[in-house]
Amino acid sequence: VSKGAAGPTERGFIGVGLLGMGVVGTGVAEALSIHGSFLQESVGLPLKLQGILVRDAGRSRSALVDSSLITTQSKDVLENPEVDIVIELMGGEDAALPAIRGTLADGRSVVTGNKEVMAKHGAGLLAMARAKGASLKFEAAVGGAIPVISALERGVTGARVRALRAIINGTTNYILTRMAVEGMAFEDALSDAQAQGYAEADPGNDINGTDAAYKLAVLATLAYGSPVSPESIYCEGIGHLTPRDFRYAHDLGYAIKLLAIAKEIGDGELDVRVHPAFIASDAQLAKVDGVYNAVQFDSDSAGELLLYGRGAGSGPTTSAVLSDLIEVARRLTGHGGPQSRQTPGTGSRVRPIDELDFRYYLRLTVSDQPGVLAAIARILGDASISIASVIQQEVDETAGSAEIVITTHRARESALRDATGKLTALDVVREIGSIIRVEE
Amino acid sequence: VSKGAAGPTERGFIGVGLLGMGVVGTGVAEALSIHGSFLQESVGLPLKLQGILVRDAGRSRSALVDSSLITTQSKDVLENPEVDIVIELMGGEDAALPAIRGTLADGRSVVTGNKEVMAKHGAGLLAMARAKGASLKFEAAVGGAIPVISALERGVTGARVRALRAIINGTTNYILTRMAVEGMAFEDALSDAQAQGYAEADPGNDINGTDAAYKLAVLATLAYGSPVSPESIYCEGIGHLTPRDFRYAHDLGYAIKLLAIAKEIGDGELDVRVHPAFIASDAQLAKVDGVYNAVQFDSDSAGELLLYGRGAGSGPTTSAVLSDLIEVARRLTGHGGPQSRQTPGTGSRVRPIDELDFRYYLRLTVSDQPGVLAAIARILGDASISIASVIQQEVDETAGSAEIVITTHRARESALRDATGKLTALDVVREIGSIIRVEE
Repeated sequence: VSKGAAGPTERGFIGVGLLGMGVVGTGVAEALSIHGSFLQESVGLPLKLQGILVRDAGRSRSALVDSSLITTQSKDVLENPEVDIVIELMGGEDAALPAIRGTLADGRSVVTGNKEVMAKHGAGLLAMARAKGASLKFEAAVGGAIPVISALERGVTGARVRALRAIINGTTNYILTRMAVEGMAFEDALSDAQAQGYAEADPGNDINGTDAAYKLAVLATLAYGSPVSPESIYCEGIGHLTPRDFRYAHDLGYAIKLLAIAKEIGDGELDVRVHPAFIASDAQLAKVDGVYNAVQFDSDSAGELLLYGRGAGSGPTTSAVLSDLIEVARRLTGHGGPQSRQTPGTGSRVRPIDELDFRYYLRLTVSDQPGVLAAIARILGDASISIASVIQQEVDETAGSAEIVITTHRARESALRDATGKLTALDVVREIGSIIRVEE
Repeated sequence: VSKGAAGPTERGFIGVGLLGMGVVGTGVAEALSIHGSFLQESVGLPLKLQGILVRDAGRSRSALVDSSLITTQSKDVLENPEVDIVIELMGGEDAALPAIRGTLADGRSVVTGNKEVMAKHGAGLLAMARAKGASLKFEAAVGGAIPVISALERGVTGARVRALRAIINGTTNYILTRMAVEGMAFEDALSDAQAQGYAEADPGNDINGTDAAYKLAVLATLAYGSPVSPESIYCEGIGHLTPRDFRYAHDLGYAIKLLAIAKEIGDGELDVRVHPAFIASDAQLAKVDGVYNAVQFDSDSAGELLLYGRGAGSGPTTSAVLSDLIEVARRLTGHGGPQSRQTPGTGSRVRPIDELDFRYYLRLTVSDQPGVLAAIARILGDASISIASVIQQEVDETAGSAEIVITTHRARESALRDATGKLTALDVVREIGSIIRVEE
């Protein structure tokens, strides 16, 4: 397939192909149907939908969208010479990756909200777009309406990012907020999130941190100009947290958030990870509640920058797709519009979590008998882990068990892992309830 | 003066002229001296400083900057055919406005941090830039390192802004934070801000809200695509606030912030104003403390978006200038880079503050005698202002005076003004200490 002989200018419009017609796809299609010609003012040419790929042609669709555009044949969209820009909203890798690749190979531009594809193949796809003179925009893949990708594209050259900390999964942040504010159990908060439409029926990728890790891979790749693959990111979910952890966190002056973190740590190495973390309750990120997302950058010269907004939902995501679309369209008509600024280079190493140092919060259920704390302290001391604070509470008199909560000074993750192995082996330790890193 | 015959590509570099060498100008000059050729990678050509206009040639300058570039003759910079981009960092209107106009008229691009010029002449200058095919970038004029201009340029088309609320003056926010947290008097907090370098020796434009109004004019013009002049903005400073106001605010569940607000209110009218305001203490903006700035947008489809960061200081501002410079330079080399997206149209009307409704906080010093509250309530009632809450406290037994704090339901500003005139005329009212609007 080659680019149609007539370009958008000769043709008198910019042709848009849409792959996928879920909630966001429908929003985009409706906006183009209603406002496509209105956009002529800012773009220079009207935008016209040329085809919409769907899986199930039988489903009922928005009355605002011309039904003759709907097709189940991808070639009707991808091989249409009057399609200048393809909007990919199918999600997943299988069909989306070849569609994006084929479009870019053809010198045509792509707007996508696909975090999985961008996380796994972003660096290569961006290089391909650059080589072909095409645009690849993906604001909708991370942070919904928060213009974090454009901030990174704009900002990285002016101010070097030293650290990036983000709350980039609305489902888990909603659940954690309910657990913190109302003392709900994880399962109840999850059910509630599903009832509210904030969690999918199969919430696995959100709960276990995979979704956040995909988005973090995209952000870290842009921020550090070095491809960071999702597999290289240490990832831990929120399913094991209990209301007790939130109570202790509160008493100790912390909030618990699922953080996505990427930092430069010298020697060309990066610290990149997703896990629940204690953060000081007066930190900006601690105040990000519910389905809101936020991305915080620390940079050399510009200090701290925080972008906060709705991270998901059809409105914000549709808005991000349309903004990208308009930028790409403006570029096609010579009205400017940024292309991504830097090509990811050849790799910083992501330092394994075992080689990093953290402060920890540990919650243990132990036998309520003398000498327990001494035994625990000895094991930690032997592993060079020093204790910062201890809270001991009687929990269950009939079971004869007590709860011990320990916060540590900075210690190597591998040392902590060894020590917790030994703690588990102690007769008096019945269970290690939680181990949560403290983010400083 | 006409553009040099040789463009940047033939010449092999992009020439940059700098007007002004204060702290930010020095930072920019040093960055270009050190990194100018390094930028070749992202820009496509090296950036070379061609001239630096200063007022006082005798002052000692950074050793990192080639002193032969320094001149006191503006023509050495502005009429140099090898200058493609002019960076204006002189501030004020007198010299800056003709320099910016002349450069744009010539088809060359401008990066400026000049909020006064952009506030007063932004719409016209942007139209001129567009007509001449030049770029005019001004991220550094508002919000320091916070990429609020690029967010607006990017976002307005995708999501219509309904309301914009901002803390955009670091000096006043620092002072208000000290007053709130430590109960300091205004004068002491101001002295402290000056000692810390957060307030100028002559802090008038910050304290009386003018600086915030300039920035708000720039933001509102971009957000609503309609020129908003600084003169049309109701503007009130912070000099009259007392520690007592902060104590009452805290007790009532509010923070006091100098807010810059712009809202669409229907009928093609805008509500645009700068004044100290009560905002609920759990609102995001209430948590923006010290020299930090934040801009919050409410939009139709994208929900709430907040951008937070250091609003001033040489580092953040330098970073904003360099980001703009790189975007403009990339456009010159055909690597893209956005131009501002919309031309301000022909004016929404800014509705005068007298025609707007607010809830109010009033603090009055009154004679400590029976019937005072009844007399006050009668005047408010006659003006159709209903009282939401009253706090009455004895303040000074020797003076026989008490303090009454009233919060009202929504009332017309003109009605409140009439009522406070009548209150002042009452014998029993010794002073109206404060009138502060509540922002909801």
